[in-house]
Amino acid sequence: MRGTGKADVFVMLAHPVAHAKSPGIFNEIFEQKGLDSLMVPMSCRPEDFDRFWDGLTAAENVRGVIISVPYKMAVYHKCAAAHDRAARVQSANSVRRQADGSWYADNFDGVGFIEGLKAGGHQIAGRRVLQVGAGGAGASLAYCLAEAGATEIRLNDIDTARAERLARLVEKAFPACRVQVGEADPSGMELVVNATPVGMHPGDPLPLDVSRLSPEMTVADIIMEPAETALLRKAREIGCKIQPGRPMMDCQVQAMSEFFDIERKDRSNG
Amino acid sequence: MRGTGKADVFVMLAHPVAHAKSPGIFNEIFEQKGLDSLMVPMSCRPEDFDRFWDGLTAAENVRGVIISVPYKMAVYHKCAAAHDRAARVQSANSVRRQADGSWYADNFDGVGFIEGLKAGGHQIAGRRVLQVGAGGAGASLAYCLAEAGATEIRLNDIDTARAERLARLVEKAFPACRVQVGEADPSGMELVVNATPVGMHPGDPLPLDVSRLSPEMTVADIIMEPAETALLRKAREIGCKIQPGRPMMDCQVQAMSEFFDIERKDRSNG
Repeated sequence: MRGTGKADVFVMLAHPVAHAKSPGIFNEIFEQKGLDSLMVPMSCRPEDFDRFWDGLTAAENVRGVIISVPYKMAVYHKCAAAHDRAARVQSANSVRRQADGSWYADNFDGVGFIEGLKAGGHQIAGRRVLQVGAGGAGASLAYCLAEAGATEIRLNDIDTARAERLARLVEKAFPACRVQVGEADPSGMELVVNATPVGMHPGDPLPLDVSRLSPEMTVADIIMEPAETALLRKAREIGCKIQPGRPMMDCQVQAMSEFFDIERKDRSNG
Repeated sequence: MRGTGKADVFVMLAHPVAHAKSPGIFNEIFEQKGLDSLMVPMSCRPEDFDRFWDGLTAAENVRGVIISVPYKMAVYHKCAAAHDRAARVQSANSVRRQADGSWYADNFDGVGFIEGLKAGGHQIAGRRVLQVGAGGAGASLAYCLAEAGATEIRLNDIDTARAERLARLVEKAFPACRVQVGEADPSGMELVVNATPVGMHPGDPLPLDVSRLSPEMTVADIIMEPAETALLRKAREIGCKIQPGRPMMDCQVQAMSEFFDIERKDRSNG
């Protein structure tokens, strides 16, 4: 039986939370592995976040939390310690309980994206990258692309100041990678990344200038639904290699499972 | 899949919670009924209860909570409204969300006991009852026994003042039932009830004077583990009819399922 009084409890926090995929994904993993664990979707209004988080912290048998929009930065700032991947973007998408009851933050957005690309056979090291989107996920991706050896990143965002800030930070952290703000134009680039939500909804415009795509380019999208966005369809028609959003999620789930140690042998909740 | 982002979330609160039976029982029911719902065991230290409860209240998709030791009274006092069964004992073992986000309290301890007795074919109306234990569960039982038509209740508790207070309250609420404090002696009684935890642990003394049991009596225990307590074994050997603790739990689970409307058709979490 999954979900006895001795269950390891994990929470998935977002607002709203009904659309979130990770509760179902993790509960299915728990089921398949025969673990007495639960991933519980929870939602709170932004004005209630502080007291929600206080209460969750008081729930002593909650071992970890996955965080999505709009709470990644707010949760990061509640943590006592963090991996550099979370600290550099001031954003947590996974936190786990430390021995003293405080929280340790990590962020697997960028890692998941990079691992997904590698698993798809796409090279990052030595590549020139156009990345559209310098928001939460975008920031995580840009650092990880630079870290994975991209030689150049052209960043584009509707908020140019945000893109400029991120470009300076990433370049400072990884000086071997040239990061500059530019147009949503893939000309001269080898890897093209959509890190915006543009393409999730029918009727969305294309997030970048697809007329400049050419067949030798790889085009990646972080959007999971639809599985093939309008951008990816265009890219496929042009002959580009494409990378959908799902592998990024799958790789994050794997990384989170290790981070939470979901199969821990020292079960001591009893 | 049980436990997607759209899941109905219920919490089972106790401290400690690992021994609690209701999370496993409810999760099995959800599984069998094909419901996308979770019953999540949660625990907090008494000094953290206020902030835990504040946070839980802020979790807008938590629809209901089952409460056990030591939080039944504390939770009752957090509720905006209550069924008379909870109000008269100032104790909640189930609360559900109201439309405005506040909590409505109920308490199925006594109801579950009475329903379990009836299901076991035991009569209450017109009976004389010895009840040992005037604590949380005991208070709930005494009211419900009087309400179900017991003509007399002899109450015994190691805390005589507590037993006296309860006797006066029950008699005031149900004047047709004579309630008096006395010895743990079943002489002259028809129904004998153990409403204490005495008998849960090996080596516990017997909760009442079994030498005064006689075969025409019915002996009931609220303890679920062991399924047959030393009291019930003695009573069975003497020839009494016996009623173990499990039916009380099963009847409470049924009452809570209705209270939480777990099979509600108007699923609007999405």
